[in-house]
Amino acid sequence: MILVHTPNPKEVSAYLELFRAAMPERQFVDLEHAQLSDIRHLVTWGLPDGLLADMPRLEALFALGAGVDKLMTRPDLPADLPVYRLLDGGMAAQMTEYIRYGVLGYQRNMDLYRRQQATGQWRKLAPRLPGDIRVGILGLGEIGSAVAQSLARDGYQLSGWSRSPKNIETVRCLHGEAGLAQLLAESQVLACVLPSTPDTRGLLNRQRLEALPQGAMLINAGRGDLLDQDALLALLDNGHLRCAQLDVFAEEPLPADHPLWRHPAVAITPHVAAITLRQPAVEQIVAGLRQLAAGLPAAGLVQRAQGY
Amino acid sequence: MILVHTPNPKEVSAYLELFRAAMPERQFVDLEHAQLSDIRHLVTWGLPDGLLADMPRLEALFALGAGVDKLMTRPDLPADLPVYRLLDGGMAAQMTEYIRYGVLGYQRNMDLYRRQQATGQWRKLAPRLPGDIRVGILGLGEIGSAVAQSLARDGYQLSGWSRSPKNIETVRCLHGEAGLAQLLAESQVLACVLPSTPDTRGLLNRQRLEALPQGAMLINAGRGDLLDQDALLALLDNGHLRCAQLDVFAEEPLPADHPLWRHPAVAITPHVAAITLRQPAVEQIVAGLRQLAAGLPAAGLVQRAQGY
Repeated sequence: MILVHTPNPKEVSAYLELFRAAMPERQFVDLEHAQLSDIRHLVTWGLPDGLLADMPRLEALFALGAGVDKLMTRPDLPADLPVYRLLDGGMAAQMTEYIRYGVLGYQRNMDLYRRQQATGQWRKLAPRLPGDIRVGILGLGEIGSAVAQSLARDGYQLSGWSRSPKNIETVRCLHGEAGLAQLLAESQVLACVLPSTPDTRGLLNRQRLEALPQGAMLINAGRGDLLDQDALLALLDNGHLRCAQLDVFAEEPLPADHPLWRHPAVAITPHVAAITLRQPAVEQIVAGLRQLAAGLPAAGLVQRAQGY
Repeated sequence: MILVHTPNPKEVSAYLELFRAAMPERQFVDLEHAQLSDIRHLVTWGLPDGLLADMPRLEALFALGAGVDKLMTRPDLPADLPVYRLLDGGMAAQMTEYIRYGVLGYQRNMDLYRRQQATGQWRKLAPRLPGDIRVGILGLGEIGSAVAQSLARDGYQLSGWSRSPKNIETVRCLHGEAGLAQLLAESQVLACVLPSTPDTRGLLNRQRLEALPQGAMLINAGRGDLLDQDALLALLDNGHLRCAQLDVFAEEPLPADHPLWRHPAVAITPHVAAITLRQPAVEQIVAGLRQLAAGLPAAGLVQRAQGY
């Protein structure tokens, strides 16, 4: 018996329909119809506290999302329970769109024209081609490497950084502390898609933001706790950074009185850069369930030590 | 002798250098060094009044731009002088970027998030995929068809409209009055790249803008005199249209007190969607000069009756 649960009952119904159509031989149930003691697999996002303790036969958890930091730090998560996260779920394409929008706006000076518009100023700025813009992507997992390759196809100069060495066609891959320093020093647009882990929290502190070139743009679509928001505001105010596009925040929803809302160089979106799309999510999870049933490894297994 | 002239002396120097490098066998001069009576070919943008009368041996004029409406309506332009306009000059790629930025912003609700940001509102809107968005391109010349094909590759549903029938892979091509009515009725984003001609002036009047679906977006990167700006403002205010991205205006620069500047649903750029880039412009004109020297037709000949 496979339990599907999210806080939104309509969403659960939609998922159940897709799962039953994709895998009619298995039994998918919602919380209301579940015998918790019989649940072997759990597909979930936003699981209520305490529920895991009532599922003694649980063999695996499939998260309906890619960023599992909150899930992995739950005190009730059994230490030996395999957790699988979504590797794409349509999120790579959405993240590419979100970051492309920021990079394209930077290249074409749309943020500066917006500021000129506020004062009724008609002034042409020097045009730049994609090849003139150096973009750095922080995070080269499934999503980050897809974003980097797409933007390289758009003609931008692409570099990417990850903890461990990677090799991605058309993207210069850097890693480690020295690689990070190099990426920061060169990136006119720095786009972060890193997960929140003990290693990444606080990564974008004042010192690292100051290492970006004068007039750079920051895009954060990873996690809010990676970024020192006060340092960002200070560097936008002193002109070191030109603009920012932020989807994630230290506190979400971003408090209504937070100065980021009002800053003319900041574009804010409410954690929508990449939303789990049901159909690709179902396809990945069904593939994983088939693998496990056959005694084979499933994709997306979270490494507890790394947190993703 | 080939005269190269624009109002900006630095630009003339840059063009002369490129032309001389590309075609060392011919003599390119600026206005100061020109024997006007010897000029056979003229490469220009923003030509002063009266100058054409002093060039009796002029055989052809190469415009340093794609939109030649102002040039073609000059009273001093000899009726039989062949005029060539730029067919690309790097403009198709720039126009694609400009329109992609608008379409991507519409698809991803970036305009609505910007308006929510103004009031500190954190509210997720329903995500849409590129395949959910119907885009209509007005104008299927070299630039319009390149834009349409690029956006079709991005996954949008692409239709295009032109005066005469066209056939472009991956783009549904409509033409004539009936085709225009169909395009308007369906386009969630309408992007105009039409030239200004007697046929197109005033095309986007109130009636045609009202024919767009509720909540549509208008992008105008063609010419300002195609659009009834007052009608646009009225339809943005009554909520029929959601937003607009405008690069061209009835009067340019847009007067500082014009209400378009202050409208929260309007993004304004100062006629920069597609700027002539020197290197591709020089390449096209040099190719044209070689064709003419060989007695062959050159690309970009303006049809006087059509105005482009």
